[in-house]
Amino acid sequence: MQLNPPLTLKQVTELLKAEFDGDPGFLVNGINEIHMVKKGDLTFVDHPKYYEKALNSAATTIIINKQVERPDGKALIFSDDPFRDFVSLIEKFRPFEPANGMISSTAIIGDGTIIQPGVFIGNHVIIGKNCIIHPNVTIYDHSVIGDNVIIHAGSVIGSDGLYFKRRPTHYDKLESGGRAVIDNNVEIGACCTIDRGVTGDTTIGCGTKFDNHIHIGHDTKIGKNCLFAAQVGVAGCVVVEDEVILWGQVGVQKDLTIGKGAVVLGQSGISKTLEGGKIYFGSPAQESREAMKQLALVRKLPKIIEKMD
Amino acid sequence: MQLNPPLTLKQVTELLKAEFDGDPGFLVNGINEIHMVKKGDLTFVDHPKYYEKALNSAATTIIINKQVERPDGKALIFSDDPFRDFVSLIEKFRPFEPANGMISSTAIIGDGTIIQPGVFIGNHVIIGKNCIIHPNVTIYDHSVIGDNVIIHAGSVIGSDGLYFKRRPTHYDKLESGGRAVIDNNVEIGACCTIDRGVTGDTTIGCGTKFDNHIHIGHDTKIGKNCLFAAQVGVAGCVVVEDEVILWGQVGVQKDLTIGKGAVVLGQSGISKTLEGGKIYFGSPAQESREAMKQLALVRKLPKIIEKMD
Amino acid sequence: MQLNPPLTLKQVTELLKAEFDGDPGFLVNGINEIHMVKKGDLTFVDHPKYYEKALNSAATTIIINKQVERPDGKALIFSDDPFRDFVSLIEKFRPFEPANGMISSTAIIGDGTIIQPGVFIGNHVIIGKNCIIHPNVTIYDHSVIGDNVIIHAGSVIGSDGLYFKRRPTHYDKLESGGRAVIDNNVEIGACCTIDRGVTGDTTIGCGTKFDNHIHIGHDTKIGKNCLFAAQVGVAGCVVVEDEVILWGQVGVQKDLTIGKGAVVLGQSGISKTLEGGKIYFGSPAQESREAMKQLALVRKLPKIIEKMD
Repeated sequence: MQLNPPLTLKQVTELLKAEFDGDPGFLVNGINEIHMVKKGDLTFVDHPKYYEKALNSAATTIIINKQVERPDGKALIFSDDPFRDFVSLIEKFRPFEPANGMISSTAIIGDGTIIQPGVFIGNHVIIGKNCIIHPNVTIYDHSVIGDNVIIHAGSVIGSDGLYFKRRPTHYDKLESGGRAVIDNNVEIGACCTIDRGVTGDTTIGCGTKFDNHIHIGHDTKIGKNCLFAAQVGVAGCVVVEDEVILWGQVGVQKDLTIGKGAVVLGQSGISKTLEGGKIYFGSPAQESREAMKQLALVRKLPKIIEKMD
Repeated sequence: MQLNPPLTLKQVTELLKAEFDGDPGFLVNGINEIHMVKKGDLTFVDHPKYYEKALNSAATTIIINKQVERPDGKALIFSDDPFRDFVSLIEKFRPFEPANGMISSTAIIGDGTIIQPGVFIGNHVIIGKNCIIHPNVTIYDHSVIGDNVIIHAGSVIGSDGLYFKRRPTHYDKLESGGRAVIDNNVEIGACCTIDRGVTGDTTIGCGTKFDNHIHIGHDTKIGKNCLFAAQVGVAGCVVVEDEVILWGQVGVQKDLTIGKGAVVLGQSGISKTLEGGKIYFGSPAQESREAMKQLALVRKLPKIIEKMD
Repeated sequence: MQLNPPLTLKQVTELLKAEFDGDPGFLVNGINEIHMVKKGDLTFVDHPKYYEKALNSAATTIIINKQVERPDGKALIFSDDPFRDFVSLIEKFRPFEPANGMISSTAIIGDGTIIQPGVFIGNHVIIGKNCIIHPNVTIYDHSVIGDNVIIHAGSVIGSDGLYFKRRPTHYDKLESGGRAVIDNNVEIGACCTIDRGVTGDTTIGCGTKFDNHIHIGHDTKIGKNCLFAAQVGVAGCVVVEDEVILWGQVGVQKDLTIGKGAVVLGQSGISKTLEGGKIYFGSPAQESREAMKQLALVRKLPKIIEKMD
C-alpha cells in the first residue's frame, strides 16, 4: 500500500515509539510485505533467517528486531516485535471502516454498469463502465474493477488474505491493507472469492474467465486470457502467466509461477513452478505424458508383480 | 430455448442480414446449441470438423460458414461468423433484464413457500409450493423450481455457463439463454451453484439431495434421488442417472454419463462414462476394487523393489 | 438438543401416540442422535445392527422398532418407524421459524460488534463482543458466536446437516435441531459453510483460522488454534484436535479423529483416524514420508519395468 502523502522516518518512529538509525527526514512512501517491496517502502523482518533478504531487498526502511549495520541509503527501525509494529501501521493507515449502506457513497461506478440487488460495494471502490454485478456479490473496500466485467452472484472480491503469525498461544493476523484489482473484460463465476493483497494488489488480467467456486489468494497475479474451471484454488503470492488453462478442482500452492499457455488437467496439484506451453496432470503434477505413462503402469502392477513371482 | 411465437427463416435472416438457402416461410421454433437440438431448432456450426454432425442433427435450420448442399427439409443460413450470429439471436430473444428489486414482480411463487430475507428472485422465475428459500440465495431469471424444495443460504441457481469461444486475441462468450430447472423434493445445500443451460435446461431430478459447495455445470441432467456430498463439481453436458451417490470433492468432466446407482468415493475424478450399479474410486476413477488393489501394491513398492535388487 | 423444561415419558408417548415400557413420570431432558447422547437423553434406533449400541448407550429413553427387554434405569418407546417419530419430536421442539427481517429481534449482539449490510441473523442467535460480520453472511437460528470473531462475506453458519434416511422410493430428512457454536478469536473466510449439529453442536475452537470455501459438516468438533487453508471439506461427526493444520482442498471423511498438531498436506484425503504430531499426504492419506517414497518409485516405474524385461 502507498502512503499519500509520504511519511518521514521521524513520523513513523514516533507512531511506533521506536528507536531508529537513519535520517529523521528520510521518506517512507509505502508499507509493504517483503514479497512486494519497492524503493521507498517500509517492510519488516523478525527472523534471523530472513535478515539478509530484508536488508538487501528493494525496501528502504526496515523494522527489525536486531541491532545490525545500516545498509547505505536505507533506514532501520528497531523493535522487539516487528510484526506487531508493522500491523499497527497498516491498521493506522488502512483502518477498517464500517459501512453505512449496501453501496458506499465513496464508491465510483462507471456509466452503463448494472448493480443488481443485494450487492455490497465498500468504501473507495472503483468500478468501470458496462459491468454487470449480479445479486448478493460483496466487493470490499478499495477494490478496483475495470470495464465490461461480469461478476456472478454470491462472489466476494477483496476479502482478507490468510496470513497469520504463529505465537506460542495463538495466531496473530497480518491485517490486510492491499487491494483486489480486476482488469477489463474479466468474467467471474458465482461464489468465487478473490482475496486482496496483504499489502500489495491481487490482480486478475484482462479477458480472463473464471467458472464458479474459484479461490484466489492474496497478492496472486493472474495473467490475461486465462480460463479457470470450477472449484480451482490458487494460494497466495502465485504468478499465473497469460493464457493458462486450469481445469476443475486444480489446486495451486503459494509462491510459484505457472508459465504462459500451460494447461493443467482436472484435480491436479501444483507444488512447484511450471514451464509454460505444456500440459500437466497429477497431484503433485507432472507433464501429462509422464503422469499418464506411470498411471498406466500402476494399473498393470497386479499383473506385473504376479509375473515376477 | 423455445421461440414463442416461432420466427420464419425470412425474419431470422433479416435480423442477421444474412444470405440463406430455403423457403423464406420455413419456421424456426427454437434456438439451441448442437448438444440440445430437436426438430424445428436453429443451431450453428463454424468448424469443418462438425459440419456433418450439424447438418445431420435434428436441427432444421443451420447457420454455417460454408456453402454446402442443403439437406432435404432443412434451411441453411450463411455467415462469415456463425458463433457471433447465434449469440446475437440469443441476446435478442433472451436479453438480460436488470432487476428492480429483490423479488421480481414477474416471479410466480407457490402457496406455503417461505422466502427468507436477502433472497433475490429474478424475472419470470417460477417456484412451487411449500418451499423454503434460505437467506441470501440468488435465483436468476427464468429458473423453475418445483414443490417442497429447500435451498440453503448463499446458493446460486441459474448463473451463466462457462462456454467461451477462443478468438486470436480473447474469448467470446456464448450468452446463456437456457434455464435451471429443479424438480420437487430437492434439497440444495449452502453456497451451491447450479448454472443454467446455455440454450437448453440444466435439470435436478425429483428427490435429489445436495450438500454444500456443489457446482453443477450448464445443460447437465441430474437424475432422481441422487445424493451428492460437499464440494462435488460436475461439469457441463453431463448426465447423472437416478440414485447415483457422489461422495465429497468428486469431480466430473463434461460430456459423459454416470449410470444408475453408481457410487463414487470421495475425491475421485470421473473422466469417462461409468456403468451404473458399481463403486468407483481414484483420479481418474476406476472400479473401486481395482483401484484399491493397485493402491495396496503401490504401498508395497518400496519392499517389492528392494527384493528385486 | 436440550428440552427446557424436561418432558415426562408420558408426555412424549402421548405426542407420538406410542406404546412404552417404563415409569410414566420418567424424565426426558434432551433429544439426541446416537453419536451425541448423554444421560437423560432420548434417542432412536431402527436397525437390528445397532440395537445393542443404542440400548447400552448413555441415552436413557430409546425409541425402538422391536419388543426388547428394558435395561435397568431406562425407558423404551415402541414405534413401527423410530426415525419418523424422532424427527417429529425435533420438528415439535425446534420448529423452523420464518424470519421477519434481516436481523431477528430475538438475536443478542455484543458491544463493539459490527454487523455489515446484507447480513442475516436468525432467531435466538447469540453473538459476542467486538466481532466483525462482513456483508451477505447468513447466521441461522440458535447459532452461538464468541468474542472477537471475524466472519467474511458470503459465509453461512448453522445450515442443516446432510443426514438422510434412504427409503424405498426417496430420502427422508433428519431435521437438524442442533447448533453451530463458534468460540472466541475465530476467523472464518469468505463463502465458508458450517453446518449445525443434527441434534448436538458443531463447534469451532478458540483461535482457529479458516481460509475461504471451507465446509464443516454437522456435529464436527474443531479444536483450538487450528489453521485450515482454502477449500478444505470436513464431513460430519469428525473430531479435529487442537493445532491441526489442513492445507488446501484436503477432504476429511466422517466419524474419525485427527490428532493434536497433525499437519495434512494439500489435496489429501483422510479416510481414517490419524495420530497427532505427524505430517500426512495422499488420497487416502499416509504419513508424508511413506507417501513421498512411494510416489518417487511410481515415477521411476517406467525405468524399473523396462530394466525387468
